Amino acid sequence: MKILVVLSGGMDSATLLWLLKSQEHHVEAVTIDYKQRHIKEIDSAKSLCAMLGVKHDIIDLSSIGQYLTGSSQSDLSVDVPHGRYDEPSMKLTVVPNRNMLLLAAAGAVAIARKMDQVAYGAHSGDHAIYPDCRPAFVDSMRETFKLADWHQIDIATPFINIDKGRICNLGIDLGVPYHMTWTCYAGDELPCRKCGACVERAEAFAFAKATDPLIGTD
Amino acid sequence: MKILVVLSGGMDSATLLWLLKSQEHHVEAVTIDYKQRHIKEIDSAKSLCAMLGVKHDIIDLSSIGQYLTGSSQSDLSVDVPHGRYDEPSMKLTVVPNRNMLLLAAAGAVAIARKMDQVAYGAHSGDHAIYPDCRPAFVDSMRETFKLADWHQIDIATPFINIDKGRICNLGIDLGVPYHMTWTCYAGDELPCRKCGACVERAEAFAFAKATDPLIGTD
Repeated sequence: MKILVVLSGGMDSATLLWLLKSQEHHVEAVTIDYKQRHIKEIDSAKSLCAMLGVKHDIIDLSSIGQYLTGSSQSDLSVDVPHGRYDEPSMKLTVVPNRNMLLLAAAGAVAIARKMDQVAYGAHSGDHAIYPDCRPAFVDSMRETFKLADWHQIDIATPFINIDKGRICNLGIDLGVPYHMTWTCYAGDELPCRKCGACVERAEAFAFAKATDPLIGTD
Repeated sequence: MKILVVLSGGMDSATLLWLLKSQEHHVEAVTIDYKQRHIKEIDSAKSLCAMLGVKHDIIDLSSIGQYLTGSSQSDLSVDVPHGRYDEPSMKLTVVPNRNMLLLAAAGAVAIARKMDQVAYGAHSGDHAIYPDCRPAFVDSMRETFKLADWHQIDIATPFINIDKGRICNLGIDLGVPYHMTWTCYAGDELPCRKCGACVERAEAFAFAKATDPLIGTD
């Protein structure tokens, strides 16, 4: 199977890349630059693909960033909220229509290359706050892709029903170099350890009874 | 109703803009630059909005153009085919996943601005060759948008069941300045009058028993 992975540079999509590669698929990756606050993750994506020898393209859609107002992740006038992913304050981190845009762009590339699937790392921990990570959204995108072009591609979301703790477990087994991934929403030099993304990453490592190589032991 | 029009600068989307404006909606427009061969249409879009006093943004997604290979409209190594829209050769003009990408980008802007609808000019003459102009695709996109974000927007396609001849009739009634629109796929100084888009435009004016101001009378 020829699969194009939407790679953010975070834990989930890195684990997805390692998983699909371990399953002997032909894997390529795209990273979308939508002028995200945590642009540092793009460097992570680049390093991860170089390490795995995976063809990687960075698609620059950054010009749309100026229109994605109201989200802490694309609008620098909105502060990154602290807390857990399932708290209402986390709605501030929702980037308008982010995943449809990412999947539409990746889908265009996959159709042009006559690939079979586009894969992305949506997981069950995202469901409460991000509508575009829910199974119903994925199913609807899958149906839409069947109607969008003469060449039909499928959407693969192997983590849709598991949470980040289990993804972390799996990634440790697969040897994912988590020290090379970037999760923090704040996009500073070191992880802030306060934003929803940092809190959830810490919980995932705690579940996996492992130490986050980006943090170490306190 | 607050409606965001996906405006290419061609006849159909120009007529759509004039129609919605005549219906007293609050109308804004976006034009997507995906490095299309007929980039001239972007100038048309700009002039049309200036004339109507409509807020207009050009979203630069041109970096994706290099990946949209195999289509005469986004890959300059592929010649623009001559003929009619319903001929198999016209499949060469299909830009991979074009409308999902356009709607996803426009949808992101509409969600950020808390608008009600995104409208685009798909019509029945497009159905044979462009899967992403068919009612089934539009219906599926509409359902997906209901699931994509907390703020739900609708997709409006008032021309989905009429052809370009009737659109031309309507546009003449509405006073659309067709001399300011651009249709030709070739993107030269004057319309080529051989590509599918030119042939269909000529048929539309013939149906409306009108003279195309871009062509005049031979």
